Amino acid sequence: STMFEFRLAVVQLQVTSVKADNLSRARRLVQQAAGQGSKVVLLPECFNSPYGTSFFSDYAEKIPGESTQMLSEAAKESQVYLVGGSIPEEDGGKLYNTCAVFGPGGEMILKHRKIHLFDINVPGKICFQESETLSPGNSLSTFDTPFCKVGVGICYDMRFAELAQVYSREGCQLLVYPGAFNMTTGPAHWELLQRGRAVDNQVYVATASPARDEAASYVAWGHSTVVNPWGEVISKAGAEETVIYADIDLQYLSDIRRQIPITAQRRDDLYSVTSVQEASG
Amino acid sequence: STMFEFRLAVVQLQVTSVKADNLSRARRLVQQAAGQGSKVVLLPECFNSPYGTSFFSDYAEKIPGESTQMLSEAAKESQVYLVGGSIPEEDGGKLYNTCAVFGPGGEMILKHRKIHLFDINVPGKICFQESETLSPGNSLSTFDTPFCKVGVGICYDMRFAELAQVYSREGCQLLVYPGAFNMTTGPAHWELLQRGRAVDNQVYVATASPARDEAASYVAWGHSTVVNPWGEVISKAGAEETVIYADIDLQYLSDIRRQIPITAQRRDDLYSVTSVQEASG
Repeated sequence: STMFEFRLAVVQLQVTSVKADNLSRARRLVQQAAGQGSKVVLLPECFNSPYGTSFFSDYAEKIPGESTQMLSEAAKESQVYLVGGSIPEEDGGKLYNTCAVFGPGGEMILKHRKIHLFDINVPGKICFQESETLSPGNSLSTFDTPFCKVGVGICYDMRFAELAQVYSREGCQLLVYPGAFNMTTGPAHWELLQRGRAVDNQVYVATASPARDEAASYVAWGHSTVVNPWGEVISKAGAEETVIYADIDLQYLSDIRRQIPITAQRRDDLYSVTSVQEASG
Repeated sequence: STMFEFRLAVVQLQVTSVKADNLSRARRLVQQAAGQGSKVVLLPECFNSPYGTSFFSDYAEKIPGESTQMLSEAAKESQVYLVGGSIPEEDGGKLYNTCAVFGPGGEMILKHRKIHLFDINVPGKICFQESETLSPGNSLSTFDTPFCKVGVGICYDMRFAELAQVYSREGCQLLVYPGAFNMTTGPAHWELLQRGRAVDNQVYVATASPARDEAASYVAWGHSTVVNPWGEVISKAGAEETVIYADIDLQYLSDIRRQIPITAQRRDDLYSVTSVQEASG
C-alpha cells in the first residue's frame, strides 16, 4: 500500500550570511526534492542564518515572518510536509531556536522550540553557550502525516534519549532532528546518536545539517543522514550542499518490531519513561 | 588517586559442553587477569554451559552450587570483584539465567536474574525463545566497589535503554553485560548498543561474550568490548578465547560529564525515567 511507503528528502543547505539567498536556495531545493517524489522534506538547523550566538538576534524573526512565509509557500507549491529546519525566533523579547513545520496546504502545523540548549565546553576543541542568547522551549513536539506520526527535536535535543523514547511511545515512527554538530562532536557522536535512537526505539531517524563552511565561525560537520529501524544508515550526505533521499518503509518497520519485539517485552513493572507534559502536537 | 582508576578484565571464555572444563579454565583466566592487575573481572553469559534452551536444565544448578562455589573461591584467591557471567540457575522448580557477583573476600554480593528474556524471530536468520525454558528475574541489580557503583544486565537486557538509564541515575559509572549475541544480531547491534549506552549515560560499558564456536548450535559473535563514556571502543576481542583489559578512569568520566553536562541539562520538567522497584543491590 502506498500509505506504508513515502519518500523523505533531507536538504543539506549551504547557509550563508545573506538571508534572502538562504531562503531562495532552500525553496529551490524543496522544489527539487518534491520533483523527486518526496512527501516530507527536512531542512537544517538555522537554515536562514549563520549559526552562532552573535548572529541570532540579527537574523531573528517573529513567526509568522519572512522565513516562515517562504516555508509556507514552499510547502504549498510543492505539496509536501516541510520541516523547516530551524530559525532564530523572537517572541516577547526572547530568542528561541525554533522549528516550524508546514503541511501541504501551506498551514503551519507545529512549532518546536529547542528544549535542550547547546551549552558545552570541550577544552581546546569546542566551547559554545547557546543559553547566552537563547531561551529554551518547554514542549515536546510531534505532528501527524497520512503516513506516520513524526517527532521533532533540534540538534542537541538528540543527545537526550528520553525525548526519542517519549516520542516513540506516543506512536512516532520517524524522528527528525535538524542539527549542526561541529568538527569535534560530529565525528564522535553524530551518527552514533542517530543509530542509537533508531535501534533503541525501532524507528526511522533523519538528521539535516547545514553544508560545511570552513570559513564560518562555527564549522558544521554536515553528513545529513537517514537511519532505518534496524540501525543501518540508508542515506548519507558528505560535507557539501546536496539533497539526500530515503524511502521510508513502515511495513519494514513493522517487520523489525515483530522480529525483535522490544516494545512488548519492556518491563513496565520495573521502570518507566514518561512525558511529564502533554506533547504539543 | 588510585581509587579513580582501576583495571577491568573481560574473559572471553571458550565454552564447551564439559562443565568441569569450563569451570577450571574460567578460574585460570581469572587468575591470569588478576596477575595483570585487574580489580574487576567479567565472565561471559552462560559460561559453564553451552547456550541453548536444550542445555539449560541439564547444566542448571542451585545457588550456591558447584559453579558459584568456584566463583567464590576464584574471587577470593585472586582478590577481585568477579562478575560471574551467568549460569542456568534452578530455584523452586524454575530456571533462570543468573549472574552472581562475588567480592574479593569470596562473599556473594549480588545475584541478577536476566529480566528481559531473549525471544526473537528474524526469519531465515535467527529464532530463539528463551522463555520456552527460562523465567525472568524481577529486580534491577547494582553493586558497590571501592572504585564505583556497577550496574549489571545480561545480554538481551542491553537492548532496553531504560535499564542503563536507571542504573546511571542511581550512580553507576560502569555497566557490565555478560552476553552472547549471535551471527545476525552481533554484527548489526552488539557494538552499537554498547556505544549508545555509554554515550547516552556517559558511563563505561563492558560486555563479555563466549568465544565463537562455529560447531555450536548457537554461534556466539564474540567481540567482547569495553567502551568509554565518550562512546569510543577502548578494548575489543576478536572471535577467539582471550582476556581483554581496560583501564577505567573515573576522572576522565568526570571530565566528560563536565564538558557535555547532559545530566544537569536533562529536562526533568518534561520527561522522566524512573525505577518502579528499588534496585536489589
